[in-house]
Amino acid sequence: MSFNTFGWLFRVSTWGESHGPAIGAVVDGCPPGISLDENMIQVWMERRKPGRNKFTSQRREPDTVEILSGVFEGRTTGTPIHVLIRNRDQRPRDYSDIVDKFRPGHADFTYLRKYGIRDYRGGGRSSARETASRVAAGGVARAVLRELAPEISIKGYMTRMGTLTAVRDRFDESEIERNPFWVPDAEVVGEWAEYLDGLRKSGNSVGAVIEVVARKAPAGLGCPIYRKLDADLAAAMMSINAVKGVEIGAGMGAAALTGIENADEMRMGRDGPEFMSNNAGGILGGISSGQDIVCRFAVKPTSSILSPRRTVTRNGNNTEIVTKGRHDPCVGIRAVPVGEAMMACVLADHLLLNRGQVGTGGT
Amino acid sequence: MSFNTFGWLFRVSTWGESHGPAIGAVVDGCPPGISLDENMIQVWMERRKPGRNKFTSQRREPDTVEILSGVFEGRTTGTPIHVLIRNRDQRPRDYSDIVDKFRPGHADFTYLRKYGIRDYRGGGRSSARETASRVAAGGVARAVLRELAPEISIKGYMTRMGTLTAVRDRFDESEIERNPFWVPDAEVVGEWAEYLDGLRKSGNSVGAVIEVVARKAPAGLGCPIYRKLDADLAAAMMSINAVKGVEIGAGMGAAALTGIENADEMRMGRDGPEFMSNNAGGILGGISSGQDIVCRFAVKPTSSILSPRRTVTRNGNNTEIVTKGRHDPCVGIRAVPVGEAMMACVLADHLLLNRGQVGTGGT
Amino acid sequence: MSFNTFGWLFRVSTWGESHGPAIGAVVDGCPPGISLDENMIQVWMERRKPGRNKFTSQRREPDTVEILSGVFEGRTTGTPIHVLIRNRDQRPRDYSDIVDKFRPGHADFTYLRKYGIRDYRGGGRSSARETASRVAAGGVARAVLRELAPEISIKGYMTRMGTLTAVRDRFDESEIERNPFWVPDAEVVGEWAEYLDGLRKSGNSVGAVIEVVARKAPAGLGCPIYRKLDADLAAAMMSINAVKGVEIGAGMGAAALTGIENADEMRMGRDGPEFMSNNAGGILGGISSGQDIVCRFAVKPTSSILSPRRTVTRNGNNTEIVTKGRHDPCVGIRAVPVGEAMMACVLADHLLLNRGQVGTGGT
Amino acid sequence: MSFNTFGWLFRVSTWGESHGPAIGAVVDGCPPGISLDENMIQVWMERRKPGRNKFTSQRREPDTVEILSGVFEGRTTGTPIHVLIRNRDQRPRDYSDIVDKFRPGHADFTYLRKYGIRDYRGGGRSSARETASRVAAGGVARAVLRELAPEISIKGYMTRMGTLTAVRDRFDESEIERNPFWVPDAEVVGEWAEYLDGLRKSGNSVGAVIEVVARKAPAGLGCPIYRKLDADLAAAMMSINAVKGVEIGAGMGAAALTGIENADEMRMGRDGPEFMSNNAGGILGGISSGQDIVCRFAVKPTSSILSPRRTVTRNGNNTEIVTKGRHDPCVGIRAVPVGEAMMACVLADHLLLNRGQVGTGGT
Repeated sequence: MSFNTFGWLFRVSTWGESHGPAIGAVVDGCPPGISLDENMIQVWMERRKPGRNKFTSQRREPDTVEILSGVFEGRTTGTPIHVLIRNRDQRPRDYSDIVDKFRPGHADFTYLRKYGIRDYRGGGRSSARETASRVAAGGVARAVLRELAPEISIKGYMTRMGTLTAVRDRFDESEIERNPFWVPDAEVVGEWAEYLDGLRKSGNSVGAVIEVVARKAPAGLGCPIYRKLDADLAAAMMSINAVKGVEIGAGMGAAALTGIENADEMRMGRDGPEFMSNNAGGILGGISSGQDIVCRFAVKPTSSILSPRRTVTRNGNNTEIVTKGRHDPCVGIRAVPVGEAMMACVLADHLLLNRGQVGTGGT
Repeated sequence: MSFNTFGWLFRVSTWGESHGPAIGAVVDGCPPGISLDENMIQVWMERRKPGRNKFTSQRREPDTVEILSGVFEGRTTGTPIHVLIRNRDQRPRDYSDIVDKFRPGHADFTYLRKYGIRDYRGGGRSSARETASRVAAGGVARAVLRELAPEISIKGYMTRMGTLTAVRDRFDESEIERNPFWVPDAEVVGEWAEYLDGLRKSGNSVGAVIEVVARKAPAGLGCPIYRKLDADLAAAMMSINAVKGVEIGAGMGAAALTGIENADEMRMGRDGPEFMSNNAGGILGGISSGQDIVCRFAVKPTSSILSPRRTVTRNGNNTEIVTKGRHDPCVGIRAVPVGEAMMACVLADHLLLNRGQVGTGGT
Repeated sequence: MSFNTFGWLFRVSTWGESHGPAIGAVVDGCPPGISLDENMIQVWMERRKPGRNKFTSQRREPDTVEILSGVFEGRTTGTPIHVLIRNRDQRPRDYSDIVDKFRPGHADFTYLRKYGIRDYRGGGRSSARETASRVAAGGVARAVLRELAPEISIKGYMTRMGTLTAVRDRFDESEIERNPFWVPDAEVVGEWAEYLDGLRKSGNSVGAVIEVVARKAPAGLGCPIYRKLDADLAAAMMSINAVKGVEIGAGMGAAALTGIENADEMRMGRDGPEFMSNNAGGILGGISSGQDIVCRFAVKPTSSILSPRRTVTRNGNNTEIVTKGRHDPCVGIRAVPVGEAMMACVLADHLLLNRGQVGTGGT
Repeated sequence: MSFNTFGWLFRVSTWGESHGPAIGAVVDGCPPGISLDENMIQVWMERRKPGRNKFTSQRREPDTVEILSGVFEGRTTGTPIHVLIRNRDQRPRDYSDIVDKFRPGHADFTYLRKYGIRDYRGGGRSSARETASRVAAGGVARAVLRELAPEISIKGYMTRMGTLTAVRDRFDESEIERNPFWVPDAEVVGEWAEYLDGLRKSGNSVGAVIEVVARKAPAGLGCPIYRKLDADLAAAMMSINAVKGVEIGAGMGAAALTGIENADEMRMGRDGPEFMSNNAGGILGGISSGQDIVCRFAVKPTSSILSPRRTVTRNGNNTEIVTKGRHDPCVGIRAVPVGEAMMACVLADHLLLNRGQVGTGGT
């Protein structure tokens, strides 16, 4: 990770501001010969796109991707793949109020303190709009995984929204695509919709927990110490706007367990050793075990709300602010495809890293 | 982060196995002219050292550090600082039982799957012994902070052990150094001691939550996107052995908050803008705000326990294992100084990064 | 350096193929608050542009730069600066002949061996067109230097073309901009023009030596061992297409000197120590001394020539090839602004690195 | 490359000063399962060792290597390999004279300007002693190449010393190990010995040109743009103390060639395409072609000479200096094994990089 780049062999660099002409991602180090076209990326963009329903921002962005390099006759060439996404529905005027006021929970204050200058239009670089570039890069990573480790499947979903939680016993993956919350529990959808609608109408917002699972990832991905697979996932997820916590497997709950409870015991199965539980979340000593890789993260409530909050101006006066513009009442919803994209990028990178050091993409 | 290195300008590379002749850390990129001698590092090593009391491993390691390079006449020269720590109390014989058995919760299985070879003696590279190198590097980082940002103070402590929690209203920082748990709540110490003693005697172990706070860190540390200060902290803490979750500020609890609750409102104070709460944990948009930087992580229970657990052998037979050797009933205790060291290293790196890009060490 | 990125704090990533829709550079880590607009980059693009005279490729590219991010109201914001350059005069049809034939001296053979696929249109990624992105990045670097170290001046020029050399005693910097060869010796221009015209008309090409000098760079830039300033310059220059050798100061000629001759003796001058010669090329132990930084590199003759050369086809048949298309008879001419750009990028990076570690941009 | 580290997957970090207790190298990212013991490294150390004959420094260093980590039961484990070399024959007293005087050609002046402090004992970190760590790392790289690409052979030799050159038509590789100059031309040895002895006795020194050739390296190593194989070799060689120029294939001489002369034409051979010449030095477009990789570098004359040279003191007074201590009259001699080591490290890194991105170690 370096500034606006992440990954070591599969490297993603993103650029662009919320209300500039465009944003984009440069994916470097992609293996050659991978089938790739714009549709293969677009399909993931659609899931993150604003305006899909009343629970997401009404900014109208087609988020159409253009591949400007690195692909020739439908296959990657091994050179940098540049994916461009034009901004279409900029309304910088919406942001005139925040030229001088620091929005609580936003990066306004810290950007100005650090850089002495900031592009205040919709948060500029710190806008959630940046995550579109991540989803585009994730589309490239998925194309790589599809060929190098086709058995891997990556799935994200919400398990909690504000005070409401999905019930794990009722989890049904096929439900995820059927509701606006990407929640795998059909029974809670009605209640969640009502709850979020209420918050939205009252000018409020709410947080969420997202879980991303990678199934059938090979054992052997990761590194012993600082580039542990879990350390990379933690950085990747925490780097998403508004994320405040990251968990692997039992997560923060591991603190409450005893060693006897926590041990994922092993027995021989038909195809080799099997684990009888997965408190480890599929990662032991920083390296994948072949179990499901389970990563969870918390997204704070959208900071842009229509309820007035106290703040100060750039010139040091007390004031109040109501953040107009078009915002998500629960930005966690659109974080689901973003979390999946980050998982895909991290796995693609570690597959290549493992292949480099050990000679295989995992075992 | 790359394999066994972390940091971008203040770079730490560690090496060494639990039962080899020595372990060590190479700190590269340290500013020149910083006062440094072995005592300034040793004082932090003492806090992590095993055998301080009955709640930590009885392995007897003086953990005496030797500075082999990068310091001349008591000051750093700007060249790599190599800190060596000899292993004194190796007992590889204790580990004969694990040559062929995978210890649940340990890296035995994944190292072998990845590398096809492993140093089984006490976990080799994946042993908690590696964290001594981190504490040594943290000592160098503290020396840097002492001169570049002397107002910063870093303090770690336990807030939870298994099912027991400290009470935040009773927090008293001066208690931390007075009890074996580094818990800032004097009233719980007796109960925690009894609880852990019971677990220890029954051949069990338990998890913990550690909180590390950096006070008076300057605003402006961090980067907008992937090297966000919180992303780096998440990677740094998650890279510590046995850590399963990392939180910043409100952490996973942010999911349960509304936007109105979560907003850290601002008012003008005597010396500039002040925040009226700290759900953000001192970081907005990946950049420090000048508030306390609050990072929390969960450590799973020690996997090495004296209660038999089911596992398999290298050759594919079902078996049971009891992990002998000398182990911590709650490895979270010794994770406190390790978490502090990682915070110090991350802050030192970001101070230098900020100075590089912006010209100051923060504002 | 990593694949398509170079620099550590001032980081340049480029993307794009010769006959794709566009090429570009992402400059990350740029200090905030630097005055920058498209004209400040365009002025350097003009010097590298093809078609300036009959001695450079007749491909018609306006090479107009568009800044898509990282600049707000005329100043850099500290976020990634994306500079886009559209390709206007693609003629992929010119390259139909090389679909199946390996052009001697080009990357056709090695790209195919490595990647199993290649964008054959004009060399794709390996085209000299890529150097336009470097000049754009160099424009950003110059803007940084202008504010952080305004006294630095960077000047490139040709000292040799084929068998003809400029005479050092006649060097006159003001001549450089007055002739098509950027040669600082007015007396040779006529002879050089005749010589190159002859080669061009006979379907041949020729190599060149370019020297790039940075005057008044501060002392203290560089690192002791692997990121020595000279090692970074060597990598930067050698990474330019067609470069086969790099020299610092006395360069390869240092081999013929004795220690007595080579010693750059010192005497006290009005403003401190002065060197009485500059065999070192301004760099001692990898660190700038405050003298002129002198870097020289050799560019091989353009490989695309109209004279038939023997080669083989992709399918393993012997054949001959004549490389049509629009090519430079001496590609070294256009390498002059490219070498200057690389010098500017390396110096900007080391200024920031030095500021990061030592706290100043040099002394 | 970063400060004291080089390589991307096969990463070498070195530490240590000339007159400190020890120096060493940490090799990270080494593939697991590679046969390695201390003898396999020691054999290369012997070639660089001082005091082998009257033409090298009389400092008596056994340069015995100790492997402290990363190897278990004779094979690498995939974790960092730390190689330690103790300094035995320090004589800091020899350097009392240079506490206050800047030695011309040395890093004394620039280190002090940059860092404000320097370990003056024998040059500290900037001493040629550091190259012992490189040779140790090169030994590890050779062990990797032996298993991953056993056909590769790497050979370095001198082609020029001062004004004397070896005759290419008489090159006989078997001569290299038979004379103190590693020169592959038996007929020049006597003349070279007399010449160097004369220089040595007169308190002078001389430069040299070293050529390092890697035979039978696979095609496909390298990257298109900034991590070109030649760019990495240029940085690696230029980072060696006293190197002032680096060439690939025709090198600086390429400037004097025409395109017709320079084209390495191709014909089909028994096992596929063959090149009829090697002006490219085995690298096209930054990627190896399967031909011999030919890298050449110039080493300046040893700066430490017994003839008085003019200089200034730290306090700004004019003075003269005679550099006592034990020095090589032609430091280029001992640069031969160092250049070989750097070639081995660069190739090992690119083999792993290629395996990571493309899935093979070359073709």
